[in-house]
Amino acid sequence: MKAQKKSTANNERQAEIYRTAAEIILRKGYDATSVNDIANALGMTKAGLYHYISGKKELLFDIMNYGMEELDREVVTPARAINDAGARLRFMIIHHAILVTRGQGAVTILVDEMPALTPAQNREITRHKRAYFDFLRNTLKQLKDEGKLLDVDTTAATFTLLGMVLWPSRWFKHDGALSSEQVAEEIVKIAFQGLLRPASRAAQRGLKVVKN
Amino acid sequence: MKAQKKSTANNERQAEIYRTAAEIILRKGYDATSVNDIANALGMTKAGLYHYISGKKELLFDIMNYGMEELDREVVTPARAINDAGARLRFMIIHHAILVTRGQGAVTILVDEMPALTPAQNREITRHKRAYFDFLRNTLKQLKDEGKLLDVDTTAATFTLLGMVLWPSRWFKHDGALSSEQVAEEIVKIAFQGLLRPASRAAQRGLKVVKN
Repeated sequence: MKAQKKSTANNERQAEIYRTAAEIILRKGYDATSVNDIANALGMTKAGLYHYISGKKELLFDIMNYGMEELDREVVTPARAINDAGARLRFMIIHHAILVTRGQGAVTILVDEMPALTPAQNREITRHKRAYFDFLRNTLKQLKDEGKLLDVDTTAATFTLLGMVLWPSRWFKHDGALSSEQVAEEIVKIAFQGLLRPASRAAQRGLKVVKN
Repeated sequence: MKAQKKSTANNERQAEIYRTAAEIILRKGYDATSVNDIANALGMTKAGLYHYISGKKELLFDIMNYGMEELDREVVTPARAINDAGARLRFMIIHHAILVTRGQGAVTILVDEMPALTPAQNREITRHKRAYFDFLRNTLKQLKDEGKLLDVDTTAATFTLLGMVLWPSRWFKHDGALSSEQVAEEIVKIAFQGLLRPASRAAQRGLKVVKN
C-alpha cells in the first residue's frame, strides 16, 4: 500500500471501493475476481480505480487492513477512554456489532477468512486480531477482578462473545425486521445477562455511554 | 453423488476424506486445490481417492452435504426426541458445539461460506440450513410460550446463539487449555444465563439429557 493511498483510506470513496471489492471477492472467489469486475460494479474505469488501489495482489490485504483500522477507529480507540469495564464492554459490543453489519458484512467476513494472504500478511492481520481479542478479554478480566463476572472461563467467554458480535455479518439484512442498532441491543442484552452478575447488569443499564 | 458413494458416507474413511479435503480447500482456496493435493495429504493414490469422490466439481457440495448430514444425525434427530424445550436446547448447544470443533472446524466453515456452488446447490444447502435455524428458533419460541425465556427477540436470539455455537470452528485448538466438551459447557452456561429466566435455568441444571 502506497503512503499517499493510506492517507486517503478514511474517505468514503475509498471505503466504498473496499466494501464493494470485498462483496465481489466473497461472491465470486478471489481468483475469479478481476480488477475490471470491481471497476464495473463501481461504475469506474479500470484506470480510475487504480487511483485508489495498488493492484489485485495487494487488494485483499488492503481490505483487511481497512477493516482492522475501521475497528480501531470506531471501537477500540473510543473504548480505551472508558474506565468502567462494564460500560466499556457495552460500548464495544454495540459499536462492533453495528460495524459488522455495514456493507452486508463482507469486510468482516473477509478479515475472518484470510484467504490468499502471504505468510507475512497473515502474521500482520493475526497480530492485529490478537490485540483486539486481548483488549476484549482484559475487559472481562477486569470485570472478574471486580466480582462482576459470572463464573465463566474468560478465554472461552471472549471467543463466545466474539461469535455473538461477528455473526450478524453473515445474516443481517438492511431491509429486515430489526435495524442494526436493534440487533446490537439484543446482543448486548444476551451477553450482559449471560456474562455479568445481576447487580452489575442493573448498574450498567442506568449508565449512559459517552463517545470520546 | 453416486448412490453407492452416498451409502458409504457414514464410514470413517469417507468422513476423514471430507474433513481433509475441507481443510486443504480452506487453506489453499477451492480453485488452487487439486484432487492430487487431497490424495497426497491422505496418503492415497488419485485413483484410490476416486473410489470415494466423484470429482473436484462435486466435492464441495458433497462436503457440505456431509456436514449437514452429520448435524442431522448427531444433533437434530436426537434433539427431536426431547420434549422438554430447555433440555432440547441444552442438548443442541452441547452437541453442535462439539461437532464444530471436529477436524479443526473446516467442514463447518465451508458450509457457512458456500463458495463456488451452483445456484441449485446453493438453494439446497440454504434450505437445509434454514430448516436447522427454524428448528432452533421453534425451541426458543416454545420456551417463550412457557414463560421461560427472558425478554429477547427470538430471531435475533437464534442467530446470536448460532454465532456462539459455530464460532469454536474458527478458534478451537485440540491441544488448548479446554477440551471441546468444556468449551461446549461454557457456551451452554453463557447461553442459558443469557436467554432463560433464573427459575428455568435452575430446573435445567438438574435435568439429565439422555441421547436417544
